[in-house]
Amino acid sequence: MQAYKLLIEYDGGPFNGWMRLPGLPTVQGYLETAAAKLDGQAVEVYGAGRTDSGVHATGQVAHMILRTPRGQKVADAMNFHLRPQPITVLSAVPVDETFHARFNAKQRHYRYVLINRRAHLTIERGYAWRVSSKLDAEAMHEAGQHLIGRHDFTTFRDTSCQAKSPIRSLDALAVARYGDRIEVTVTALSFLHRQVRSIVGSLVDVGRGKCTPDWMAEILEARDRTACGPISPPDGLYLERVDYE
Amino acid sequence: MQAYKLLIEYDGGPFNGWMRLPGLPTVQGYLETAAAKLDGQAVEVYGAGRTDSGVHATGQVAHMILRTPRGQKVADAMNFHLRPQPITVLSAVPVDETFHARFNAKQRHYRYVLINRRAHLTIERGYAWRVSSKLDAEAMHEAGQHLIGRHDFTTFRDTSCQAKSPIRSLDALAVARYGDRIEVTVTALSFLHRQVRSIVGSLVDVGRGKCTPDWMAEILEARDRTACGPISPPDGLYLERVDYE
Repeated sequence: MQAYKLLIEYDGGPFNGWMRLPGLPTVQGYLETAAAKLDGQAVEVYGAGRTDSGVHATGQVAHMILRTPRGQKVADAMNFHLRPQPITVLSAVPVDETFHARFNAKQRHYRYVLINRRAHLTIERGYAWRVSSKLDAEAMHEAGQHLIGRHDFTTFRDTSCQAKSPIRSLDALAVARYGDRIEVTVTALSFLHRQVRSIVGSLVDVGRGKCTPDWMAEILEARDRTACGPISPPDGLYLERVDYE
Repeated sequence: MQAYKLLIEYDGGPFNGWMRLPGLPTVQGYLETAAAKLDGQAVEVYGAGRTDSGVHATGQVAHMILRTPRGQKVADAMNFHLRPQPITVLSAVPVDETFHARFNAKQRHYRYVLINRRAHLTIERGYAWRVSSKLDAEAMHEAGQHLIGRHDFTTFRDTSCQAKSPIRSLDALAVARYGDRIEVTVTALSFLHRQVRSIVGSLVDVGRGKCTPDWMAEILEARDRTACGPISPPDGLYLERVDYE
C-alpha cells in the first residue's frame, strides 16, 4: 500500500464538475477509473476542491492509495489511462497515509479571468468571461477589500451549499488589469459553494459602475443571497493552487 | 465607398487556414461572407499574412472596401455575422483606399508557444506544442541568433512555397522560458511558407541536445530543405502583430 499526492490540471469544459456522479463525465470519475485500471482494484481519489461544472484547474490536489506502489511512474501511468480526456496528472508524489488532500489543505487559491472587450472570444472561448462594458478594475479591487477577513458569506453562497456554516475567512483578494484582461485572485482556507463566482459577479457590477465599491460591504452585511450580483459563468474560473504545511 | 483596416483574432483550429478555398471553412472565406451580408454585395478581404491550417492569430490585419460606409459600427456588424465562428474583428478603422494590408506591412511578428513537460495538454490543447524531453531554452536562443539577417532560407521553406525568392531578412528571434512554457518570437518584413514552423522544429532539435547551436548555421548555409529539423505543429503558432508606417 502506498499513498500518493497528485497535482492535477484539467479543462473543466467537458465535465460535470469534479465530483463523481454515476453515468456522467466528471473529473473524479475519470481519475478513479484510471487509477482502478492501474491498480487492478477500485481506488478512491479525494480532491482538495470540488470544482463545479465547467470550472478549470491548473493546480488541483488529490490523494489516493494504491495497493501496488509504483514510485515515480504513477503520473505517466495515470496519464496513459486518462488520455484523451483533458485531465492530466502533473506529478504524483508518495506521501504518508495520513495525508488528506481536503482536510490538510491550508490555503486554496483561485483565479478568475475576464476579457473586457466588445468582440466575442475566439482563442479564449470557454476559458474566460467576456464583459463588453468598460470595467474599472481599480474600483473592483477596492470593492473586494471589504470582503477580506472573517465574515458570514451567506450573500455569496449558493442556496445548494452543503457547508454547515456560512462563516469563512477570506485571506486575500486582488483585481489586476493587463490590457483587456482582468484577473481576480482570491485566497482562503476554504470556500463556500459558488462563493468565488458570486463575488466576481458582484465585483463586475461595481466595475461597470452600476454599484459603488462600498455597496460590496452593504451586501456582505445583508447576509442575504438575493442581495448578491449575478453569478459569473464557470468558464473564467481556475483552481490554481492548494497549499499544505 | 470606404476602405477599412481590420484587426482580427481567430482560433485557427477549425479552419483550413486563412486563404479562401471553395467549399472549405477558411478565415478569409468567413470574413468575406460576413462582409457581403453587411454590404449587400461581394467584398474581398485581403490579409497581411496567409496563415496555414490550424495556425492562430491574435493580431492579423486585413483590409476591405465597403460600398456603404458605416463608421465605427463595422466591427460590431462584422462580428454579428461572424458568430459563432471563432473569428472576431477587434477593430475596424476607416483608411485611405490606397492602404493594402499585405503590401504596406513593414513587419510581421509571430509567436510560437511550447509547453515543455511530460503530461499531456488539457487547457492548452490545440494552442501549444507539448515537448516531453527537457529543452535548453538558452541553447535554442543561441541557435536562433545564427538566422538573424538577410539569408537564403531554402532550408526553412516548404517545398510548396510560391514565393519567387528564398531570400528573406529575419530581424529578430528570441527564445524565453517562463516555467514549463517556452516562447519563440520572430520578426521579419515577410516570411516564406512554413518558415516559422520549420525554424521552431529545428530549434527544438537544438533544445533537446540532439544538435548544437552551431548546427543551425550549418543547415542555413546548406540551403537544402532536407537538412531542416522536423516541422513543428501549427497549434503553437500565433500571428501576433503586423506593423505599418
